[in-house]
Amino acid sequence: MVSNELQHKIDFKTKPLGALGHLEHLAHKIGMVQNTTSPQLSHPHMVVFAADHGIAAAGVSAYPQEVTYQMVMNFLGGGAAINVFCRQHGIDIKIVDAGVNFDFPGGLNLIGKKVRKSSRNIIEEPAMTPEEYQQALANGRSVVAGIAETGCNIIGFGEMGIGNTSASSLMMSKLFDIPVVSCIGRGTGLNDDQLQNKIRILSSAIEKYPEATAVDEIAQTFGGLEIVQMMGAMDEAFRQNMLIMVDGFIATVAVAAVWKKIPEILDHCIFCHVSDESAHLRLLELLGQKALLNLNLRLGEGTGCALAYPLIQSAVVFLNEMSSFEDAQVSNKE
Amino acid sequence: MVSNELQHKIDFKTKPLGALGHLEHLAHKIGMVQNTTSPQLSHPHMVVFAADHGIAAAGVSAYPQEVTYQMVMNFLGGGAAINVFCRQHGIDIKIVDAGVNFDFPGGLNLIGKKVRKSSRNIIEEPAMTPEEYQQALANGRSVVAGIAETGCNIIGFGEMGIGNTSASSLMMSKLFDIPVVSCIGRGTGLNDDQLQNKIRILSSAIEKYPEATAVDEIAQTFGGLEIVQMMGAMDEAFRQNMLIMVDGFIATVAVAAVWKKIPEILDHCIFCHVSDESAHLRLLELLGQKALLNLNLRLGEGTGCALAYPLIQSAVVFLNEMSSFEDAQVSNKE
Repeated sequence: MVSNELQHKIDFKTKPLGALGHLEHLAHKIGMVQNTTSPQLSHPHMVVFAADHGIAAAGVSAYPQEVTYQMVMNFLGGGAAINVFCRQHGIDIKIVDAGVNFDFPGGLNLIGKKVRKSSRNIIEEPAMTPEEYQQALANGRSVVAGIAETGCNIIGFGEMGIGNTSASSLMMSKLFDIPVVSCIGRGTGLNDDQLQNKIRILSSAIEKYPEATAVDEIAQTFGGLEIVQMMGAMDEAFRQNMLIMVDGFIATVAVAAVWKKIPEILDHCIFCHVSDESAHLRLLELLGQKALLNLNLRLGEGTGCALAYPLIQSAVVFLNEMSSFEDAQVSNKE
Repeated sequence: MVSNELQHKIDFKTKPLGALGHLEHLAHKIGMVQNTTSPQLSHPHMVVFAADHGIAAAGVSAYPQEVTYQMVMNFLGGGAAINVFCRQHGIDIKIVDAGVNFDFPGGLNLIGKKVRKSSRNIIEEPAMTPEEYQQALANGRSVVAGIAETGCNIIGFGEMGIGNTSASSLMMSKLFDIPVVSCIGRGTGLNDDQLQNKIRILSSAIEKYPEATAVDEIAQTFGGLEIVQMMGAMDEAFRQNMLIMVDGFIATVAVAAVWKKIPEILDHCIFCHVSDESAHLRLLELLGQKALLNLNLRLGEGTGCALAYPLIQSAVVFLNEMSSFEDAQVSNKE
């Protein structure tokens, strides 16, 4: 019923049928999640999960591993891109230590959910033990359960973790049973030689664990602590009936893993941008999704979500505030 | 000098080189126009020019001509899409009667710049006399000169006019000397038969005036009063050193006409979205431009500008507020 009422309300706004394009689909989706023709966005939040990756030691990133904790300090100081864009749009930001290889001093505004200092090196052993994997899922869930108490009904997830495009490429390859080389990109900016090295390392890692085929095994073996906490967080956001803003390649891999178990999560997801990381577009296609923005971003942190947030607001305000043909006494199509 | 300083400031923000994609080019462009590494956006304005078109009598639109004045009343009442999006982002909106076929009552918050009630029917005679054309240009300039006194340094232009995709297609065809059929789309939503009729009518109109080849002749013969006022307004915005937000197909045709005389205007233009009107993408390519948004919008009114405005703000705030690697003590690429 709400579906038809929503479509009717959208169609009789003072504009040609369908003229607001993608924003019309978005308005319909938001109304369906909230089961109303007059949806509202409340207490928007952005949660950035940070963790280190054992595989970073193999030289798969253009940046050294210490950048992970340094960027966490930058987030806490308010100087990173995600801070700037969240401030611009009134989005509350939370930073989570999911597994950074660093002892943070006390007194920081940091949510401590460290499972261990860095995931294990996939080249030598699975990224997590089964216990560590379950702990990471639970930690992610608990962060969102806490945020739900604020009345938040729209949440985005970002990540920081040197090496995490590698973990994501491996997960994507296994989740969709496609060659890992089609899931690999330049990350934060590898040159041609470095890219070839990354392909070689990840190809060998994937061959090491042929038995990992179920979602949990895949995420435990190839994932990262921030990626798995994001999976738990997304699962909880779905259960809390929140709208989920999905950022770039890494966040989309986390969604894909949850989707394998809960296909309905896609009804709650707003894919905010298509990243410059080449595998992201392929991944969106595999999920049958189109993103709001295409600005050649490849930063992560949730920046694509924060930048897309005003468009999500626009979908809500046109639905709630625009006149209908009847209200405004405008003639409809002849 | 400012160009190098801007690029250096962008490159040393705490993010991989180029990771903010299109927003980095935008930040550079804005800094160049304002000749500073710390640009600011002041008193953003949206001006919507409305006018009727003689050619509407030939049935080139899916909507009746009275929709033009009805939508002007809707703009003045605050209920149209452009009102809703401008309110959302704190953009000041001005509505201009450039040539609507209606006697508006007094006491409205409408800027009266009517040159005549509707352009002439191109099928029978040029859309404007040379005097009417010059008057329309001057009227558009005067609107922007008035707004400049508020301290506005960023301005967008929208339009409303049943039949104005037809005028725009004719202008595009003549400005770039390409077949008119490649410049024609479905406008507000023509079906296949109606589209064939539009193609037939515009093809015959274009053959009637082979002598019109200079920009002024083209715009006078084929243009609309709102399109020509937009040309004057864009020209004045350039002279006032404003940033110019460009909306969809019709606004881009107006830019193209000004660009033929003042190529440097493109340095001031921010192409806000690529419209679902099929000729718009081709037109952007002819101008060598890439748009910020691609949301399948086809509404006009300046809605693409208003929706893109937060991204333009984001380019400014990341440039002004993000930490550098040095400030934040983050390690740069190895």
